[in-house]
Amino acid sequence: MNYYAAPVRDLRFVLEELLEHRSLALPGFEETSPDLVEAVLEEAAKLAGDVWGPLNASGDHQGCQRQENGDVMTPKGFKDAYQAYAEGGWNGIGVSEELGGQGLPEVVASSVQEMLHGANMALGLCPMLTAGAIEALSHHGSDELKSVYLSKLVEGAWTGTMNLTESQAGSDLSQVRTRAIPCEEAEGDHYRVFGQKIYITWGEHDCAENIIHLVLARKPDAPQGNKGISLFLVPKFLVNADGSLGERNDVVCASIEHKLGIHGSPTCTLSFGEKDGAIGYLVGQEGRGLNHMFTMMNEARHKVGIQGIGVAERACQHAFAYAQDRVQGKTPKSRGGKDCTISDHLDVRRMLLSMRSRTDALRALALYCAAELDTARRSADEGERQTAQARADVLIPVVKSFSTDQAVEIASLGIQVHGGMGYVEETGAAQLLRDARIAPIYEGTNGIQALDLAGRKLQRDDGAALSGLLDDVETTARELDENAALSGLGQSLAAGADDLRAAMAIVLGQGKDPDNGPDAVQAYATPFLNLAGHVLCAWQMGQSALKAQAALDNGSNDPFYRSKTLSADYAIKQWLPVGRAQRAVIEAGMQSLSAFDVSV
Amino acid sequence: MNYYAAPVRDLRFVLEELLEHRSLALPGFEETSPDLVEAVLEEAAKLAGDVWGPLNASGDHQGCQRQENGDVMTPKGFKDAYQAYAEGGWNGIGVSEELGGQGLPEVVASSVQEMLHGANMALGLCPMLTAGAIEALSHHGSDELKSVYLSKLVEGAWTGTMNLTESQAGSDLSQVRTRAIPCEEAEGDHYRVFGQKIYITWGEHDCAENIIHLVLARKPDAPQGNKGISLFLVPKFLVNADGSLGERNDVVCASIEHKLGIHGSPTCTLSFGEKDGAIGYLVGQEGRGLNHMFTMMNEARHKVGIQGIGVAERACQHAFAYAQDRVQGKTPKSRGGKDCTISDHLDVRRMLLSMRSRTDALRALALYCAAELDTARRSADEGERQTAQARADVLIPVVKSFSTDQAVEIASLGIQVHGGMGYVEETGAAQLLRDARIAPIYEGTNGIQALDLAGRKLQRDDGAALSGLLDDVETTARELDENAALSGLGQSLAAGADDLRAAMAIVLGQGKDPDNGPDAVQAYATPFLNLAGHVLCAWQMGQSALKAQAALDNGSNDPFYRSKTLSADYAIKQWLPVGRAQRAVIEAGMQSLSAFDVSV
Repeated sequence: MNYYAAPVRDLRFVLEELLEHRSLALPGFEETSPDLVEAVLEEAAKLAGDVWGPLNASGDHQGCQRQENGDVMTPKGFKDAYQAYAEGGWNGIGVSEELGGQGLPEVVASSVQEMLHGANMALGLCPMLTAGAIEALSHHGSDELKSVYLSKLVEGAWTGTMNLTESQAGSDLSQVRTRAIPCEEAEGDHYRVFGQKIYITWGEHDCAENIIHLVLARKPDAPQGNKGISLFLVPKFLVNADGSLGERNDVVCASIEHKLGIHGSPTCTLSFGEKDGAIGYLVGQEGRGLNHMFTMMNEARHKVGIQGIGVAERACQHAFAYAQDRVQGKTPKSRGGKDCTISDHLDVRRMLLSMRSRTDALRALALYCAAELDTARRSADEGERQTAQARADVLIPVVKSFSTDQAVEIASLGIQVHGGMGYVEETGAAQLLRDARIAPIYEGTNGIQALDLAGRKLQRDDGAALSGLLDDVETTARELDENAALSGLGQSLAAGADDLRAAMAIVLGQGKDPDNGPDAVQAYATPFLNLAGHVLCAWQMGQSALKAQAALDNGSNDPFYRSKTLSADYAIKQWLPVGRAQRAVIEAGMQSLSAFDVSV
Repeated sequence: MNYYAAPVRDLRFVLEELLEHRSLALPGFEETSPDLVEAVLEEAAKLAGDVWGPLNASGDHQGCQRQENGDVMTPKGFKDAYQAYAEGGWNGIGVSEELGGQGLPEVVASSVQEMLHGANMALGLCPMLTAGAIEALSHHGSDELKSVYLSKLVEGAWTGTMNLTESQAGSDLSQVRTRAIPCEEAEGDHYRVFGQKIYITWGEHDCAENIIHLVLARKPDAPQGNKGISLFLVPKFLVNADGSLGERNDVVCASIEHKLGIHGSPTCTLSFGEKDGAIGYLVGQEGRGLNHMFTMMNEARHKVGIQGIGVAERACQHAFAYAQDRVQGKTPKSRGGKDCTISDHLDVRRMLLSMRSRTDALRALALYCAAELDTARRSADEGERQTAQARADVLIPVVKSFSTDQAVEIASLGIQVHGGMGYVEETGAAQLLRDARIAPIYEGTNGIQALDLAGRKLQRDDGAALSGLLDDVETTARELDENAALSGLGQSLAAGADDLRAAMAIVLGQGKDPDNGPDAVQAYATPFLNLAGHVLCAWQMGQSALKAQAALDNGSNDPFYRSKTLSADYAIKQWLPVGRAQRAVIEAGMQSLSAFDVSV
């Protein structure tokens, strides 16, 4: 039962029918045909299903082993699976051709990422971090750094890491203490890095020949706070002038965390400079380290959302398979009174439909966001690019937080469908909850995402970008209203949009208060993001219903379309109302939060 | 940070101020003074905090080890901790004096159970199962069986188990296949039991000298289905005529499950009759096994709800302690712009208040239910007994399901408060999620509880018992309305009551349909239970606000009362609305569920 089959049909439905392959019409994607996209998805599905997926449970069971010298052995099969990925050219599919990648649209790269994370989230983290390193280096690295490191990273021959957190510096990175000391001129243009970084995903491993650490650190004369932080590149092995690997650098894995899940992913404490100092190179401008790092974090946050969706999809597959296999009880007399599988009991079917509907909705929203990123990067029209970027900026914290919060709930519901079997590790359902549970925490906790949305993103344009999205939501609601076969959906969706507008007015209004504004944003941020997630997902499901109904109206008798209309019906009529309650939460104000004394 | 301090003050607030110690006025509790109750709570708190609590993490880490001969070793310290519990007389506190217990009210026994489960849920399961065995045996066992087994179980010298599940018989126990073959008369009045039972909590262990298994099985000539199932008592060691232990019976632990959590609790597959058949004795009437077992399950379900609350409380304690210790970021300028702990950020404080408020509410409702059980058992008035039993019958599935679903969410939120530290097992927050996750599954899944509520309990009296509770909810709402210091709470609570009445009308109306009734009950059961849980918890928090406000109005300046009013404010204004959304879910109907084809 513990298998994974990539949801190619569902992904194609979003790319082809919901998004109408609009990314392919952008400049630079002239050679990317729908057929090519289909072929890429089919090939990625094989890698995910045949190579990565089968290692998910064994990787969890074995975990990663640290040797005495700091080397780390990943679970059996991971190295080969990673190599198959790198050699298949998958690491570069979303990277531009100028950098040696294949330059496929973000919607396609995201679809492939969903498959890989669904197949094996622990392994999927390795290239996810590399992608961040490519992003930061390509935007901010000097030509020399790029020429030495970039092509190896794009190929996947080397992997990358993000070194942000220290024990006293988590969500507040201004507290970073790692030092980077400039070397004497005779030594060359580099630094010696000293310090300890924690929670470094794939910080040390045996799957690639070199690891490129991107490290936040301070020069000795740097000011305190954010402006004193710079970004440094610290390779595991130094690179010789001819590109070959030289000496081992002074960075070592001091320990591996014992985590709730993603056991196959080595989460390391890295010690820099236990001897002479780790050799590092400045990336970008001095004092701009946090900004440069956030270049990669914005993209990484979208990818974490995608990761949640991958795990949610796998949880659906487990639960659907078990529920259709497990015989227990009888149908009611009106349906024959016969022995049946538990999927025939409507209470179980509610869990299944809830899981499926939410996964469909999250996927559609995340890929809509990817399409906006494509437009933001590639459109020939400046205004289009700006509008798309503004929408993506608003959507990314929603995709990250809402997808991952929901993924945890979906994985937990997947356990419930299995009954007692779900609590037994061998079944595989429990691993999905354990794995999924990290996603609301890393790459900026979901609380930080909510602050990003309700604070920065909403306040800076006075809600213009979100309001534009809501105009589209309302258009969809009207289209639903005009469709007799989809009665009631338009009204529900429009009501959700009203709620979000009302909540936005409160957050914007109170957020402007010079005294209480920052507290108001904090108090409302999470309910606001939750409401936005529900409304935007319901919007996508409204689109989905329209497309699926149109196919049925055109004579299709494909049960897939019927299923999509029911999934949308559930999302809009039975899931959206739960999110709409967050308007009342916001309207209730912040008084009790402000007054609550946690020390009592 | 990984400690537990029993919430004596919170428990006393419920027992003394919310329930006004009404159980103590019942016949049979004349000698149970408030002072005695207080002393019991204080002593239990020591056992929980000093003896059981410190073994929680180590028990999780070590787990249980099965030896080749089927013996099971529990984690280090568990045997001594169990013995301290038994020798302290704790096993009998809720058992009547006629049976050798101390005959304290259920509200007190439940309070003690909450502490023990909060301290160490895995160990707490052992006496929880024994209590079920005592219940079943005292109600249905012959005088002979009672004289041999009961006092040892009440003392805690021996422990009990419930053997229901087989691989093909989970939620549908009519599929039980274990056989009980009557012995020749010359052998005596007993049976030989053959079969395999799975998921047997504390099925084999080294903490007590004998284990008394209560086993559902069929006689060879028994009819198929429920009516062919009888209940048998199968001891691990046979008992000699003088009460000493005799030969080992033919029952052995074949394996221990590798579970997501409660690692310190051995969940066993038990093989009966690998040799000559395990000697067993009929308990109660032939063919009434399921009924007899459900005598103990009703009580056990309440205890599982209590268990969820215990874990939720511990999750609160972890999160509050961490949040007040972890320095990160600064307060807004309006509050000084200084370095602060994360508890000063309102987004984090929202998580904390949400955890605390929900835990308070669940506790109050569970203890209200316990008080109704006391009245049902002890009141001198027949009508009062019946009303209280009817209320308890409605409340038990709510307490079981809602408390455990919420406990999972609260434990998960507890992880989130810790950020990255929460995902690292050493912190202890993750264990609470892993442990809590079983509670919505066992003792009847939460879906089964919802069917019990929306089907059996609601339909059999046409909603009379729940309607009576709602009358009380509305009275509380009016009292809140009249209290100027608690503005808005009454209106919110009344709106919740309206929603529950409306939902009840739908479930009752459609539930009566001769064709679609059973499907309608299935379709609405879980949303209905969720709505009921929110409204009833909000009601208790309304009471809590009234009592706390009265104390403040009477001049108390104890910050505890101020905290309770804020906890109530949050529950009623910011948590209840989320539950109220379930009315819309029910009103949306069952069409999409009925039509959804899970095989697509």
